[in-house]
Amino acid sequence: MDGVIESDVKMEGNARTKSVGAYSDVLLRVLGLVLTMIAAVIVGMDNQSKIISLKITDILPPVQITVNAKWQYMSAFVYFLVSNAIACMYAATSLIFSMKEKNNIKNNMALLALIILDLLIMGLLFSANGAAAAIGVIGLKGNSHAQWRKVCDVFGTYCHRMTAAIVMSLLGSFVFLLLVVLSVLNLQRKSK
Amino acid sequence: MDGVIESDVKMEGNARTKSVGAYSDVLLRVLGLVLTMIAAVIVGMDNQSKIISLKITDILPPVQITVNAKWQYMSAFVYFLVSNAIACMYAATSLIFSMKEKNNIKNNMALLALIILDLLIMGLLFSANGAAAAIGVIGLKGNSHAQWRKVCDVFGTYCHRMTAAIVMSLLGSFVFLLLVVLSVLNLQRKSK
Repeated sequence: MDGVIESDVKMEGNARTKSVGAYSDVLLRVLGLVLTMIAAVIVGMDNQSKIISLKITDILPPVQITVNAKWQYMSAFVYFLVSNAIACMYAATSLIFSMKEKNNIKNNMALLALIILDLLIMGLLFSANGAAAAIGVIGLKGNSHAQWRKVCDVFGTYCHRMTAAIVMSLLGSFVFLLLVVLSVLNLQRKSK
Repeated sequence: MDGVIESDVKMEGNARTKSVGAYSDVLLRVLGLVLTMIAAVIVGMDNQSKIISLKITDILPPVQITVNAKWQYMSAFVYFLVSNAIACMYAATSLIFSMKEKNNIKNNMALLALIILDLLIMGLLFSANGAAAAIGVIGLKGNSHAQWRKVCDVFGTYCHRMTAAIVMSLLGSFVFLLLVVLSVLNLQRKSK
């Protein structure tokens, strides 16, 4: 009789842990979706035009020219936007799958595919963050050795928005890292 | 009697799978160590000096000046070298740990820590690759909008070596990705 009660308590505990795990998984996927969507939208909408005065000779008055900053102008930012858009779409698709299939213990291959895809998206986001941040540093500080001058003194608003997008995307990539850790923890719990 | 034979065959099969898994783990860690070490060494030793002619006025003859390309000049390359050096040291440490502890099934917390560290190193390497590649693209093609001119036409050898280092590091980051996949596969096998 004691054995039956003990077994019931253990099963109840397992079911509770499983539901907490599934709840965290869904929550993290929603968070990943929101963060990468915000990052992609910020970059996609980020453009700034500015009128600057250019003095060509001492005799003539300075010429007013309009300069633009757009994400399309820099391949690293294109890669950043595309990566975040892919991560966002993947988060939405995997969220539906996760809600439907995660508790189906028989579907081991699908679960494995989900972990590998989480890993690949994490790698994609980390590389995109690295690329955007590297260009951001040059934009902010310039590089005297390569004679690449800073642009953030002219395009301040553009640079601030891009920084916000990189922070969002960085948080998003850590969300995907946590998703993999969560899956590993679940597997380890099952293997005991 | 049949049951005993069946159980023996199963145990033998499990032991063989485990030894193949441990062998792959060691092999991948050695590969990760070698690839990140090569990447770090290539970048660390990569510098190029070149004498270029600079014409200041039409009257005076062109001035000969020496220009240098070093990894220290670009923060993305410093980050790339440091990340690869960290990954290389981690691969060496984890290799020793993996050879000693991986088969000890009781050490679950240590195994979990190893998977999480593999994941973090993978993220670090992917971000470093992204950063170095983004700067590499600007160095190769330049950017007319930001008026950052290409430098690879002058420092061809430097750029070729840097490309080789990025390829090595990219392969290294996929090795760490495979290590995580291998750990997940092992856990899934145990949980069946």
